[in-house]
Amino acid sequence: MYSSPNYAPSPQHHSQRQSYSSGYANSGSRHGSRHGGGYPSQYAPQGPPPGADPQLWQWFSAVDTDRSGAISVTELQSALLNGNWTNFDLDTVKMLMAIFDTDRSGSIGFSEFAGLWKYIQDWQNVFRHFDRDHSGSIEGHELAEALRSFGYNLSPNLLTLVEHKYASEPATGYGPPPGITFDRFVRACVVVKTLTEAFQRHDSDRDGWVTINYEQFMSIVLSAP
Amino acid sequence: MYSSPNYAPSPQHHSQRQSYSSGYANSGSRHGSRHGGGYPSQYAPQGPPPGADPQLWQWFSAVDTDRSGAISVTELQSALLNGNWTNFDLDTVKMLMAIFDTDRSGSIGFSEFAGLWKYIQDWQNVFRHFDRDHSGSIEGHELAEALRSFGYNLSPNLLTLVEHKYASEPATGYGPPPGITFDRFVRACVVVKTLTEAFQRHDSDRDGWVTINYEQFMSIVLSAP
Repeated sequence: MYSSPNYAPSPQHHSQRQSYSSGYANSGSRHGSRHGGGYPSQYAPQGPPPGADPQLWQWFSAVDTDRSGAISVTELQSALLNGNWTNFDLDTVKMLMAIFDTDRSGSIGFSEFAGLWKYIQDWQNVFRHFDRDHSGSIEGHELAEALRSFGYNLSPNLLTLVEHKYASEPATGYGPPPGITFDRFVRACVVVKTLTEAFQRHDSDRDGWVTINYEQFMSIVLSAP
Repeated sequence: MYSSPNYAPSPQHHSQRQSYSSGYANSGSRHGSRHGGGYPSQYAPQGPPPGADPQLWQWFSAVDTDRSGAISVTELQSALLNGNWTNFDLDTVKMLMAIFDTDRSGSIGFSEFAGLWKYIQDWQNVFRHFDRDHSGSIEGHELAEALRSFGYNLSPNLLTLVEHKYASEPATGYGPPPGITFDRFVRACVVVKTLTEAFQRHDSDRDGWVTINYEQFMSIVLSAP
């Protein structure tokens, strides 16, 4: 099994992190304003909080284009690019926000940004590891190897479904679909993990079968990214 | 119940349509080329096929920016805009391609485009009908009314999950999430329909409960848009 990073951390995990600038970097977002809460944007905090990593602060400031002190979903989507220069999908950005916006302010403060940044870097290492041919995207057999290394032994049928669902374009019918770009690869892996764990919670006797009602079924699916 | 258009037609339905330019408008895409199959793009067909609706041909030509005679997923995504000027999600565009690319060429020929265009117009009418406050997006109670009118009586819990999953931004924690834009509303409705029908196929005695294994469960979910 590949020694992977914590590739799908739960919100709980990250909410336990020590916040070394809590109440400060987030001040601009608490009131739902994109221009800082309570004072005009030209007076928004410009410098890093005490003890901040200077490089991380520089990245954070670059993403926080309106200088509100917090990163909105729009700012995050504009900042995140795949290797082929396409923006991350809104669903991936919302997934990242759901994991790292631990105070549920609707935006990412500097202390939350540290976790987000590490998460993306860890995933980039995973992506590069499994992109064996360095094509910049994950093709079918690379996807199979990645999921297997994470402990998911999906059938060929399920692997094909994942490959098609997360491909960046539809298949042409004369071959496999094009590969999976970075952000969709992350989402695919988190979705497989989320769905598998939800299934296992209902499969209390671990026989691979569950008996669930419509409400439970829909709730599982709609809760996945 | 609202007299809705055929809001989630199956691929089978559309493949039965009479193709009045088959083998012509699609010629540019059959070989996976974006510049017409067999001849340089400056000699690609410029005029409409016999019997074509002139207005529809004009729309088609506007979307087919590389004049290949067929619309790629990239061209379609560039052409489709929500009311707030955001592009459709890739997943919505792929869903549309899966429904209307009936010859599985990986692109939309002119004959396929007619169905796609009508589908989007029908959905726009549905969207405007349920956007009671003319806000340009579908909020929680509007979503509930739309799904109910389609015959889906989802619980408040499931409605909240749909509302959050398809909202254009995460909720801030101090209120409901922002509304659902057009393309994500269409996808939400098709996903609810697809999942409900898949559940019902397994619920042969119609008691609201299914017993399914991991393979079946994952296959249902990964097959939905």
